[in-house]
Amino acid sequence: MAKLDTGPPRGTRDLFPDAVAKREAVISRLADSYARFGFRRIETPALEDISRLSWGEGGDNEKLIYRVMRRGLDPVLADGTNVSGLADLGLRYDLTVPLTRFYANNQGRLPSPFRAMQIGPVWRAERPQKGRYRQFTQCDIDTIGEPSVIAEAELLEGTLAALAAIGVAPVRVRLNDRRLLAAIATEAGVPAEATGTFLVVLDKLDKIGWEGVKAELAGRGFGAQVGERCEGTVGLLSAGGDPSSILERAADLLPGLERDVIDGLATTTESLGRLRQDAVKAAENGTTQESFSWAVDPTIVRGMGYYTGQIFEVEHPEVNGSVAGGGRYDGLVGRSLGKEVPACGISIGFDRVVDLAVVPPPDLGVALLYARDAVPAPDVLAAARRLRSGSRAVALVPRRGQMRVQLDALKEDGYSSFVLMENGSPGEERPLR
Amino acid sequence: MAKLDTGPPRGTRDLFPDAVAKREAVISRLADSYARFGFRRIETPALEDISRLSWGEGGDNEKLIYRVMRRGLDPVLADGTNVSGLADLGLRYDLTVPLTRFYANNQGRLPSPFRAMQIGPVWRAERPQKGRYRQFTQCDIDTIGEPSVIAEAELLEGTLAALAAIGVAPVRVRLNDRRLLAAIATEAGVPAEATGTFLVVLDKLDKIGWEGVKAELAGRGFGAQVGERCEGTVGLLSAGGDPSSILERAADLLPGLERDVIDGLATTTESLGRLRQDAVKAAENGTTQESFSWAVDPTIVRGMGYYTGQIFEVEHPEVNGSVAGGGRYDGLVGRSLGKEVPACGISIGFDRVVDLAVVPPPDLGVALLYARDAVPAPDVLAAARRLRSGSRAVALVPRRGQMRVQLDALKEDGYSSFVLMENGSPGEERPLR
Repeated sequence: MAKLDTGPPRGTRDLFPDAVAKREAVISRLADSYARFGFRRIETPALEDISRLSWGEGGDNEKLIYRVMRRGLDPVLADGTNVSGLADLGLRYDLTVPLTRFYANNQGRLPSPFRAMQIGPVWRAERPQKGRYRQFTQCDIDTIGEPSVIAEAELLEGTLAALAAIGVAPVRVRLNDRRLLAAIATEAGVPAEATGTFLVVLDKLDKIGWEGVKAELAGRGFGAQVGERCEGTVGLLSAGGDPSSILERAADLLPGLERDVIDGLATTTESLGRLRQDAVKAAENGTTQESFSWAVDPTIVRGMGYYTGQIFEVEHPEVNGSVAGGGRYDGLVGRSLGKEVPACGISIGFDRVVDLAVVPPPDLGVALLYARDAVPAPDVLAAARRLRSGSRAVALVPRRGQMRVQLDALKEDGYSSFVLMENGSPGEERPLR
Repeated sequence: MAKLDTGPPRGTRDLFPDAVAKREAVISRLADSYARFGFRRIETPALEDISRLSWGEGGDNEKLIYRVMRRGLDPVLADGTNVSGLADLGLRYDLTVPLTRFYANNQGRLPSPFRAMQIGPVWRAERPQKGRYRQFTQCDIDTIGEPSVIAEAELLEGTLAALAAIGVAPVRVRLNDRRLLAAIATEAGVPAEATGTFLVVLDKLDKIGWEGVKAELAGRGFGAQVGERCEGTVGLLSAGGDPSSILERAADLLPGLERDVIDGLATTTESLGRLRQDAVKAAENGTTQESFSWAVDPTIVRGMGYYTGQIFEVEHPEVNGSVAGGGRYDGLVGRSLGKEVPACGISIGFDRVVDLAVVPPPDLGVALLYARDAVPAPDVLAAARRLRSGSRAVALVPRRGQMRVQLDALKEDGYSSFVLMENGSPGEERPLR
């Protein structure tokens, strides 16, 4: 027999028991933490109709869809067959498309507001690169049907609690509002219909700096003063000071900005402030609480075009980019439903936080080392059963090779004790090492 | 805005919070139970190379593969393009193909025996029908590297424990061995190379009875005496009696049968007998134990061609067909590895057992009913935080409509108590109903 290639498909990976155990522990803690805020898990299929995935709101992700071929096609295609017609389904590239479809389909049977939690795999045919996979896990919470910023404040508090539950701290929240960005654009002389393009360029600020942003704006046909004025406004807004002083200055500098936007950001930051006060009090009482900080940052854009209100990112000092992000997208659910529905969500970058997470390693329990040829199988199983009573794990391991070497390997694997069974009756349980 | 079709793709389904909660509770109990036997979860990608999925061991499932199109194809295909070359990946239709690939790829880094647990979705493009879905969940345990029937006995004990942990009882185990079936075929006059075809027909016995089996055997060119003699042997083997008397008769009636086969079945049934004795004792001591029974049944075939030794099915009185099934497949892992590796596995039909499972419904905890326009968001969030301390869930619900109607709905949703907050300070917590 020839050995075949046995690797997983390019850009995907197999997960070993220790990795799955850590991921399951993290999922369990995140889900339990979110459940305490009333978020409830839903599940949708991995496959969606290709027309839904290609609805135009998925940004660059729509170029990365895994397309699934129709069943029952003729083996040989007719001349001039168009590739696009051969696929009727695709693998989802995020959990937002399925959520909006789910809500639109079931609105009458769901509470309002509806707090959804989704934890599951998504697929993107990206060029494989270190640490990025073509199948990865997203962990989203969304509140649908809540127009006020109590939704934003709660999503952020829930996410801070979830991250704290897996030991991911300290984190920093950066807050912005798409309407504040739009007002900055208007103030800088960007025509309303070019705001989207302007934001695509501004979104690169972290990577290319102001000089790069200004050059690209000019290259895209914006007047030279647009980049300058934008930099100036952002500089005035951001210059030192706490969130409330930034908001005061925004109200002064951007007369076209609705008062609602300022008030909303003020409410969210006040909620975060109260949360931290409570955390400090809890810490004084000896309860462990993870620390966090926050700032209003008028340069946060977030890629997707569908955001309509507040947007946020959560950062951790050891991670490039954010560990979580989201915002309000009031128009999106309505696209499927034919009426406006307020909605707001935040997504944890699961694979990033798993690496940071601190959870206890699994205890594999007792290794029952038995002499394979000397002890009948029913006796081995009965001995294991007696050791197993309660919730303790007991694994049967055939005795082989040097005792010390085998015990070291079992300890390394994660067993905490062993029992030797060389004949009809097992020996005493002994700790490993 | 027009309302779009918002259903999931044909043959798939969306899962609501109560359904997901039950499924997660069942998965958690099954996984915890299997972990006590030393089975450890692994995960592989949903996608596999199409050539691996089409390896010839997948039986009819290979006709049901969802094929994923290569990326970067020309928009218009050349004349005479063959459909089969357009797909390079496919969605897995079971968890056995990925497991054998995983083991072959990582053998050197895995313990021996390796006890694998897999719980995850698989996809088959079957014609949609009631209660069957194109995406469904499988829950498999497999022991790789254990040549003796201690593997079979442990897989069955583990599965009985797992089913008991979710309240699926009483169940009945039916046991057979592919080599016993082969000996029956030989005794009935089936040529060795036709054994596969013979088993395909015998597998229909449950549905079409002996008359149907005999007619189909004749129709497929087997001599008239083949069906008669097979029925006769099975009749003699099965006539009354406990497992050990069936095995004694098998040794007498089928002189070509290796002694190992009889001994192996005897060991498995003895282990099940000892397990039941212990369960009865535990029941006398007041510990709840689920009941089960077992039988050697020489007509069990199981569809897949790759089984080489013992095969088993687990049945529940309320389910047509089996709730779990599996067997030994010593040749399969070797196909990827280039050498023989003993292996044995059992799969729980997850969607079937979820319906039967008895798990407590989730308690949604406290509904904090707040007056939306009268209480500032930071105050509502702070009140929820105080109620939430500990592990209790607290959900914010805007107060609306008639009080009694809203409280009844909350009770119905699964909340156990509520707190009313009409101004700065919340009222007392009160039970619902």
